[in-house]
Amino acid sequence: MMLEEITSERLGERYYRYTHSSGVTVLLYPMKGYSTVTAQFSVKFGSVDNCAIVNGGKPWHIPDGTAHYLEHKLFESPEKEAFARFAETGASCNAGTSYDSTRYYFSCSANFEKNLEILLDFVQHPYFTPENVEKERGIITQEITMYLDSPAWRVCMELYRGMFADNPVRNDIAGSAESIALITDKLLYDVYDAFYEPSNMYLCIAGGFDMESAIEVCERCLLPGKSMNTVSILPEEPARVITPRVQMSMPLGKTNFALGFKSPAYSGRQMTEEYIYQTLMNDTTVGAATDFYRSMRDSGLINETFESSIMMGRGFFVPAIFGESDDPDRAAEAVRAEYRRRKTEPPTREAFLRAKKYLYGDNIRTFNNVESVAQNLSDAALTGTSAFDYAELAAAADYEGMLQRIENFDEGNCCLSVITPSEE
Amino acid sequence: MMLEEITSERLGERYYRYTHSSGVTVLLYPMKGYSTVTAQFSVKFGSVDNCAIVNGGKPWHIPDGTAHYLEHKLFESPEKEAFARFAETGASCNAGTSYDSTRYYFSCSANFEKNLEILLDFVQHPYFTPENVEKERGIITQEITMYLDSPAWRVCMELYRGMFADNPVRNDIAGSAESIALITDKLLYDVYDAFYEPSNMYLCIAGGFDMESAIEVCERCLLPGKSMNTVSILPEEPARVITPRVQMSMPLGKTNFALGFKSPAYSGRQMTEEYIYQTLMNDTTVGAATDFYRSMRDSGLINETFESSIMMGRGFFVPAIFGESDDPDRAAEAVRAEYRRRKTEPPTREAFLRAKKYLYGDNIRTFNNVESVAQNLSDAALTGTSAFDYAELAAAADYEGMLQRIENFDEGNCCLSVITPSEE
Repeated sequence: MMLEEITSERLGERYYRYTHSSGVTVLLYPMKGYSTVTAQFSVKFGSVDNCAIVNGGKPWHIPDGTAHYLEHKLFESPEKEAFARFAETGASCNAGTSYDSTRYYFSCSANFEKNLEILLDFVQHPYFTPENVEKERGIITQEITMYLDSPAWRVCMELYRGMFADNPVRNDIAGSAESIALITDKLLYDVYDAFYEPSNMYLCIAGGFDMESAIEVCERCLLPGKSMNTVSILPEEPARVITPRVQMSMPLGKTNFALGFKSPAYSGRQMTEEYIYQTLMNDTTVGAATDFYRSMRDSGLINETFESSIMMGRGFFVPAIFGESDDPDRAAEAVRAEYRRRKTEPPTREAFLRAKKYLYGDNIRTFNNVESVAQNLSDAALTGTSAFDYAELAAAADYEGMLQRIENFDEGNCCLSVITPSEE
Repeated sequence: MMLEEITSERLGERYYRYTHSSGVTVLLYPMKGYSTVTAQFSVKFGSVDNCAIVNGGKPWHIPDGTAHYLEHKLFESPEKEAFARFAETGASCNAGTSYDSTRYYFSCSANFEKNLEILLDFVQHPYFTPENVEKERGIITQEITMYLDSPAWRVCMELYRGMFADNPVRNDIAGSAESIALITDKLLYDVYDAFYEPSNMYLCIAGGFDMESAIEVCERCLLPGKSMNTVSILPEEPARVITPRVQMSMPLGKTNFALGFKSPAYSGRQMTEEYIYQTLMNDTTVGAATDFYRSMRDSGLINETFESSIMMGRGFFVPAIFGESDDPDRAAEAVRAEYRRRKTEPPTREAFLRAKKYLYGDNIRTFNNVESVAQNLSDAALTGTSAFDYAELAAAADYEGMLQRIENFDEGNCCLSVITPSEE
């Protein structure tokens, strides 16, 4: 077993990585003085993975929502289900499925080794039966329905549908009532075998734990797996948005909007780097400290809900603006005009430096929280980067680099998603 | 059964209230077009209730953390525990104990009546045994330990300890290892009988549900209870803080601070009104839109974590400033000096109006979210106010009222809590 040390001189931080004989990547980040530990066991398998080639066969189409359904059912066991086992040790545990990954995790301040055993045990031992899979269908249908009540979620879902022709981010992570009707115990086993193979999995542990004990549990409990040479196939996606505007209505106090810009997708360190530059550009162009923001607020065209963010993952990168406005089209046009104006009247170097300082500070702060560190480790592992790349790239970001991104930003390749209040 | 309608012309909103024959107050807030429902069953019993007189007897001292311990154990049942029952119906359920209340709640988008039955059933049927109470002790000890890893939590806990001589907000909501060692099944039954009496309980339902069905379940499942004439006794608390400064260290990137101002405690509508005026005063004096804030940021004395908030409940009202600073004493002195300066150079009427508009808008927005509405209803019920009082009082707030609060604000009656990074 070869333990590799990853250090950051800049941060005065370090963690350890090794590849278990099974193929699972193990990342260990001991944090002195903390009594809590978080462990995340992650799989590079999310809702966008709805088409795959297994062992060189034909493309296999997987119903939307399968990754999320599998996540729900993995907690089952012929004996005691995982939640009940964690309840006995006092750990809090949960799981989540995103567009491009599935994560299982616990936090505890005692019985760490026992909890780690439970985590590794239940994730590596699927137990799907026709009955327990059937039982879940109503529960997941409800979960899908509940999300439909959230304007923040829907304005974003509709935005993706307006932007993307074929990219599976168009589909709800949990799927639809129609797609999950196709899910069976047999399918879940097939999908588990195809995607939950050790080399596609990452175990990240952060906090106050003993390295040797953690490694001992990994050596004992991580099981060898069989590779099916699974290749996830993302469809080709046209460069332009498919429509400039989508609209719907639902119960709501004020009109919600999301303005998304369709950008090429990135991977690895480049995704982190582009995320950083895009954030700096947003902060200095439409951020809360800009004159643009203040004049928009004063004019009443936007309110304090206005914010920019970047949604990204395997196969997509979407800088977006969210807010409420009585005239979302005018607000969106003002935002686009401001991005255009900045090409000839760029933000000052001082504004850039201030934004960079905040961005860097925000990242540094995450290293003082056990759960954030575990999250950073998983994010990094899943994208093939290091947990310190963000800080390094943020420190290295320069004014000229930002100006170049502003120059190249295609503010016309966008879609406006609007949700108006429904009539009573 | 007498159904009272509570309406707000201003908001165009309404809800219904009735007192069940048992004494439980039931609040029903149907929201058209929503498919989710949330129900909260709340008890006016929290961690500060650590001394009570029952049936006119002698003061009864209750170990710290008992309300929280009881909340954990109420999910137990001789048959299937409540979490498992909700898992079958697909609802998500949880509970929380604060300084002055305990709340049990679920959200669902199907099987509402069944879920409501489960909620009423488990909250009204305690099942404590020596074994199940003992089993929980380690779990709760871990929960207490986990909070100790959170700088945000500790800077606030230490602040309370520096400010209050006798008020039980000095103590962790979950108690300490020592105090919970005293908790037995017998004690939990006694406390349950004393505090979980129907007239001390509030059932709040919001979202897309049928009024008649909800009332039918309440009529059928709410049980009569026996009053023990419980009176919770809060100790007299001196008006001044007990010490101006407290400090500790823990693993941390940058020094954290909290500056709290000791104010008289309020109740009912007055608490809401003072909360509103204090928020307006904070926003216009040290808020992110002020020159003070910008110059503090530019000087590097504070960073973007700087914020003001008000912590309040039965028996306490603490306006406070939180942030990170390399020189927290200088930052705190600058804040106090700014509050002093504002007595002679008050914020402008325009700044007041803008802050008021934001505050009002923030409140309005909560009426579009099922869980927020249920939360508002519970908050209002527990404090003997209406869910619309906040909006009414915010709309009625005037500039002169704010100036008067600024004039009367005792910025010297404060405590600074500091957490420095521990040496490695």
